[in-house]
Amino acid sequence: MNKTPQAEILNIGDEILIGQIVNTNAVWIAQELNKRGVPVKRMTTVGDTKTDMVNALDQAIQHHDIVIITGGLGPTKDDLTKDVLTEYFQTRLVFNEEVFEMLDDFFKKRGRTLNEANKTQCYVPEACTVLMNYWGTAPGMLFKNKGKIIVSLPGVPLEMKELMNTYVFPYIETHYPLPPILHRSYLTEGIPESELMMRLAEWENNLPAAIKLAYLPSAGQVTLRLSTLNENGNGLAMIKEQEDKLKSILGDEIIGYDGETLEQVIQRIFIEKQLTLGTAESCTGGYIAHKITSVPGSSAYFMGTVVSYHNRIKQEVLQVNEQTLKTVGAVSKETVIQMAEHARSLLHTDYAIAVSGIAGPDGGSTEKPVGTVWVAWATPQGTLTKKYRFGNDRLTNIHRTYQVALGVLRKLVLNIPVGESFWE
Amino acid sequence: MNKTPQAEILNIGDEILIGQIVNTNAVWIAQELNKRGVPVKRMTTVGDTKTDMVNALDQAIQHHDIVIITGGLGPTKDDLTKDVLTEYFQTRLVFNEEVFEMLDDFFKKRGRTLNEANKTQCYVPEACTVLMNYWGTAPGMLFKNKGKIIVSLPGVPLEMKELMNTYVFPYIETHYPLPPILHRSYLTEGIPESELMMRLAEWENNLPAAIKLAYLPSAGQVTLRLSTLNENGNGLAMIKEQEDKLKSILGDEIIGYDGETLEQVIQRIFIEKQLTLGTAESCTGGYIAHKITSVPGSSAYFMGTVVSYHNRIKQEVLQVNEQTLKTVGAVSKETVIQMAEHARSLLHTDYAIAVSGIAGPDGGSTEKPVGTVWVAWATPQGTLTKKYRFGNDRLTNIHRTYQVALGVLRKLVLNIPVGESFWE
Repeated sequence: MNKTPQAEILNIGDEILIGQIVNTNAVWIAQELNKRGVPVKRMTTVGDTKTDMVNALDQAIQHHDIVIITGGLGPTKDDLTKDVLTEYFQTRLVFNEEVFEMLDDFFKKRGRTLNEANKTQCYVPEACTVLMNYWGTAPGMLFKNKGKIIVSLPGVPLEMKELMNTYVFPYIETHYPLPPILHRSYLTEGIPESELMMRLAEWENNLPAAIKLAYLPSAGQVTLRLSTLNENGNGLAMIKEQEDKLKSILGDEIIGYDGETLEQVIQRIFIEKQLTLGTAESCTGGYIAHKITSVPGSSAYFMGTVVSYHNRIKQEVLQVNEQTLKTVGAVSKETVIQMAEHARSLLHTDYAIAVSGIAGPDGGSTEKPVGTVWVAWATPQGTLTKKYRFGNDRLTNIHRTYQVALGVLRKLVLNIPVGESFWE
Repeated sequence: MNKTPQAEILNIGDEILIGQIVNTNAVWIAQELNKRGVPVKRMTTVGDTKTDMVNALDQAIQHHDIVIITGGLGPTKDDLTKDVLTEYFQTRLVFNEEVFEMLDDFFKKRGRTLNEANKTQCYVPEACTVLMNYWGTAPGMLFKNKGKIIVSLPGVPLEMKELMNTYVFPYIETHYPLPPILHRSYLTEGIPESELMMRLAEWENNLPAAIKLAYLPSAGQVTLRLSTLNENGNGLAMIKEQEDKLKSILGDEIIGYDGETLEQVIQRIFIEKQLTLGTAESCTGGYIAHKITSVPGSSAYFMGTVVSYHNRIKQEVLQVNEQTLKTVGAVSKETVIQMAEHARSLLHTDYAIAVSGIAGPDGGSTEKPVGTVWVAWATPQGTLTKKYRFGNDRLTNIHRTYQVALGVLRKLVLNIPVGESFWE
């Protein structure tokens, strides 16, 4: 095989076709294949119906070299993928001792015993390579057919990802001559995409043809990605050269590299500087703490949180003045300052963030419409505050609050000026 | 036309194939078509490449009656859909006065003038019905071909939705005899899919042919869905009859209906019973509070949280005994009991949940491996605890902890027996 293989992603599941779930498996597989230089040419979703599956399989194998199938591997009657593949490749199901032992062990560890439905999962097509699934109960399968490979994986995202990482990507990488594509990505926070495009226009127009720039926007953040085929072995140097130019334009506004998240950036900086952090949350209801603690190792710098959803907790646990709550209310500069400063002392941290706002969809007023959020940062140098005005969607408001709270925190810790408006 | 039409959704766009955007258009269209009794049989995504588009179009028209195409209608070079459709249906592009006036007006209202790229958008295939787009610049197109309809819409979600609502759904509803499909779904928590299947096997085998059952599993939860075509107008009664049988098998283990989430169920019960709730979280780091407060109106019963990530916070804010932490450690029955009981009094709530565990990937030991989580529920009737043993994935462990914490809480509040093992 000496040409770049083309891939198709084939998702099986009625739940996708009725719009009940978003097909995030296809997104992840596409990202990971592209990263490795394998273009995805088509994504197809069909239901748990034999003829539709066979037809989609025919089309996929006819047009593409690598077919990644997810879903339809559960133990229930509507899970047909294994039977369809067995028939399609004219093989038969055989009992696999290794799968049985693994499953038996899987259940024993969880204090359960194998039932009849699970035992059917020990039967696998004779013609396939079994991909042992240590993260669930349905093994994956890899078929080779006329120089093409067809992989079948469970639809549970965690299991699918583990099997792709453990078996499928290594297989693809060793069996195809993939053009080594180099990528480097840069996370920016708080700059609108259109502004970023204008600031980068001149640099972008002068990029060498071998380097490709992509803007990858998501709510409140834009990731810039430089890619190049490393054809002459100088790809890394070429990217480095452009990275330096990019840095001279954006400077401190590049906050992370190569897929780092905001909370990973914060963790890296806090641990480096041996600083500690805590939060006092009202409208975000624990979301900032959750994002921070979703990163392994966060206990090295993150002390804790008080979610003061009710005003009584603001008063009693965070010592917010009763008079303040009565006169200017919970969504106010005064309240978040008191929350942040008391959280900093209660949690014994160097920095503390406090947020209070109206997440919506109800609870707004003319003076404080839905989307109004006050944030305070208590620091060793004093306390800063800012009022934000987001939109009407509850979850978006919560997410944007976390972004600005950590985005500004990063600047404060790195001594990057945030502007006069933040100070009391 | 007197049979139920079958639909295919065909999305055009390289940005989907590289995993840059999630295909939410397909989800929305699928939901809306299903609601109207039109089953979606396939979703296909191809890139901005002529041969791939023609091939996908061929397949779609060959197998299905309604084809909804989105994307590839912009004014730039890589937008090929209009040209491909014009050639495919052997027609030609003609200047459309009405589109021109609409576009001219659209730009004038925004203080801009029509450029050359936009003028190309005034040319439409002669053989189609033009769907005037008042929400953007690219008109939609509806082709009729051999008793099938093929609709092409812009990929911008807002424009796509407006065009579907304004033209396409009304067209489908008047041109096809649609049987209204009825759905009812039932959320279960904590019963493995295979066990559920065995418990329901007899009932499932005796379901009338007109009723379809689907198992929709996600981590730790399985949703059961009954669907029927309401052909004789008795669909609702038929579902109700089966629902009663299902309830007699699963009883209290059905926790929610028609898309309710666990946290929505908890909120409904707590507000109904005028009870209050708080949490004390260690390994979940605020995730339980976040899930609870992501539901609008949660402030009516949820008071707050202490995330005691560091042991010092467990001691000082949650009054966990220093000796307890030294002898049995933070991940222990004794610690979560103290956390829960003190949180209940500190937050002035009827119920309080406390969790402490090893989320991973590091920090485990032989005695307390990664995935070990202690949960305590402090209630007006006393405090209950249980040790769980999840897997190795950090985010899954956090999510599973939230599920069991709220799943058991529901039983306690509803006086459903949880078993002896939970009591001290």
